[in-house]
Amino acid sequence: MSTAPVRFELLGRCARTMARRGRLHTPHGVIETPVFMPVGTQATVKTVAPHELQEIGAPIILANTYHLHLRPGDDLVAAAGGLHRFMQWNGAILTDSGGFQVFSLAEMRKISDDGVEFRSHIDGSRHFFSPEAVMAIENRLGADIIMAFDECPPYPADRSYLEQSVRRTLAWAERCQRAHRRPDEQALFGIVQGGVHADLRREAAAALVELDFPGYAIGGLSVGEPKPLMYDTLAATTPHLPVDKPRYLMGVGSPDDLFEGVERGVDMFDCVLPTRIARNGTVLTSRGKLVIRNAAYARDFAPLDSDCSCWVCRTFSRAYIRHLIKAGEVLGIRLTTYHNLWFLTRVMERIRAAIEEGRFPEYKREFFESFGYNDGTMREDG
Amino acid sequence: MSTAPVRFELLGRCARTMARRGRLHTPHGVIETPVFMPVGTQATVKTVAPHELQEIGAPIILANTYHLHLRPGDDLVAAAGGLHRFMQWNGAILTDSGGFQVFSLAEMRKISDDGVEFRSHIDGSRHFFSPEAVMAIENRLGADIIMAFDECPPYPADRSYLEQSVRRTLAWAERCQRAHRRPDEQALFGIVQGGVHADLRREAAAALVELDFPGYAIGGLSVGEPKPLMYDTLAATTPHLPVDKPRYLMGVGSPDDLFEGVERGVDMFDCVLPTRIARNGTVLTSRGKLVIRNAAYARDFAPLDSDCSCWVCRTFSRAYIRHLIKAGEVLGIRLTTYHNLWFLTRVMERIRAAIEEGRFPEYKREFFESFGYNDGTMREDG
Repeated sequence: MSTAPVRFELLGRCARTMARRGRLHTPHGVIETPVFMPVGTQATVKTVAPHELQEIGAPIILANTYHLHLRPGDDLVAAAGGLHRFMQWNGAILTDSGGFQVFSLAEMRKISDDGVEFRSHIDGSRHFFSPEAVMAIENRLGADIIMAFDECPPYPADRSYLEQSVRRTLAWAERCQRAHRRPDEQALFGIVQGGVHADLRREAAAALVELDFPGYAIGGLSVGEPKPLMYDTLAATTPHLPVDKPRYLMGVGSPDDLFEGVERGVDMFDCVLPTRIARNGTVLTSRGKLVIRNAAYARDFAPLDSDCSCWVCRTFSRAYIRHLIKAGEVLGIRLTTYHNLWFLTRVMERIRAAIEEGRFPEYKREFFESFGYNDGTMREDG
Repeated sequence: MSTAPVRFELLGRCARTMARRGRLHTPHGVIETPVFMPVGTQATVKTVAPHELQEIGAPIILANTYHLHLRPGDDLVAAAGGLHRFMQWNGAILTDSGGFQVFSLAEMRKISDDGVEFRSHIDGSRHFFSPEAVMAIENRLGADIIMAFDECPPYPADRSYLEQSVRRTLAWAERCQRAHRRPDEQALFGIVQGGVHADLRREAAAALVELDFPGYAIGGLSVGEPKPLMYDTLAATTPHLPVDKPRYLMGVGSPDDLFEGVERGVDMFDCVLPTRIARNGTVLTSRGKLVIRNAAYARDFAPLDSDCSCWVCRTFSRAYIRHLIKAGEVLGIRLTTYHNLWFLTRVMERIRAAIEEGRFPEYKREFFESFGYNDGTMREDG
């Protein structure tokens, strides 16, 4: 009956936590959830080619409305036939609305109920983002999932400011719905704001649900608040979102947060963490983080992670990758990026299997144990 | 009979030029000549993975003794099992002796007949390169072809200095031969110096040939002298080298110079040009150089070169690649580098076919015509 471009299927639930096993049907493939989505801000997941993302098994990636609007321009992307064709990626794409970026990156912003005036961080040029303007941009970019334009307050923020931003985000969400011109091809997700206040989150969620979105994001977390506060806020939010719609926790992706998010009923995650730390020479392994630049690995001819079966681990040694990184060679960050994305993708795969097998809490414990989370600090070397 | 690790087979010659078609047998595969060898200074061809080099069809790459000695150290590479295993490259490798680098990159060098004392450009540490020291390093690195340690004078240079450096290079070549510890696994090539003086080149070549090397390089060209002078010097040198041994013109690789070198009897070339200009956003096409950063390509959805069948040209548009380069994205320089190496490798393939078919001069004319060389300047855009 429905012509909805994105449809969520709830396959199963963990009996002991709020973890869910689902499936998201999109115009560019089926996404098994919970899922981690690599970030491709400027229409490229940094250093990685599209066929490599496919090899890694990423079913969906992010791209960014703010960045692509400024460069190369959404009109150019539209002329290329949309983001998928522009970057030659046949999997699904989700575009962030730029809400986070105008509040964190742009200069001299002026916020009103109408929208946000700001200057580009690239060339200082003046721009105006309103819900209508952002929808037009996201419609031109053509991602499978597009995000409503929201106000993303920093942490900490006054309660009165948070209340105002929740109201504004809700009003903007409604305007986004009305302005969305391609509802049969692109699914518009609403964003729950409200800082770390359970009551604000609950109200925001309830109001958004009234508007009936095909999916709901939880924004404004992982912006500097202590982790326990983030987990509590999450737990206070997801119960107020419909069971039959996907839930997306924005900007979250350290391994522990992925588990904590899944445990609290989140289906989708994105984060620059695996790609960003890779470029600093840090890799994720089954035994914890490993800072490959460290002298300890100079003559270590083992793979990054001996439990990993990725191309990088099957082919190159820690010593070689360390050499590349120390020498400033691009191949080095290609290899660490590829491995980190592979690693997180496999972790999500195992999380899904564990939920199916009714042993998510056990798998979480095993992973934390092996990764070195259980002593309160993350192991720096494996 | 011979246990020589590298053997040259002369397959044919052009009837109208000195162009030769040959085959070089090495411990890591057969190399059809004339050949262009991509440069992998620090044990990586910048941005490119080994399996991609294979895809491109590069049978041999360069690595650099000076750079690898300083970082990560030849002892470490030896501990990894040699360069091939360290970088996971199963094709052939040639190591430059570092002669060029100590004279161009290193700081505070002190040259004597014994060798060169210098400071590392990385950390200022003090080092001493003698023919014996360089052979020990190259033996540890384990390339298939290793170069003798030579003195590489700049252009212009006094004749008296050039005479002295030729004498020194010859004395060093003999010491390299005596110091070479793996003659059954690695072929040591001698290097002809002599600036742009035909008589010095002739003398240097004759003296080197007396020493009987399995291959001969022509060094000290493409260091700033006018191109016609380089071509004349080449033409005055190759006739004094044995027909049955490979000839390698060091540091040369612009498309016109490849043709001019082949025409004068050169079999092997290396140059950072295709990879270096790629990182500046310039690509080689059948219609000449193309500066992809130019605004003209912002909305050009054609491939870099519509006559090219490489992965990049089959997949991505000029507009996308321009966006990546402008946005400082690593994928951009990956794509331009891959394409440029593919382009030059195909040009060499066609040069070999043309020599076989007795139409090398015609192919040269066609290429120059199409590339835009014939009006005296290289076309900047295609």
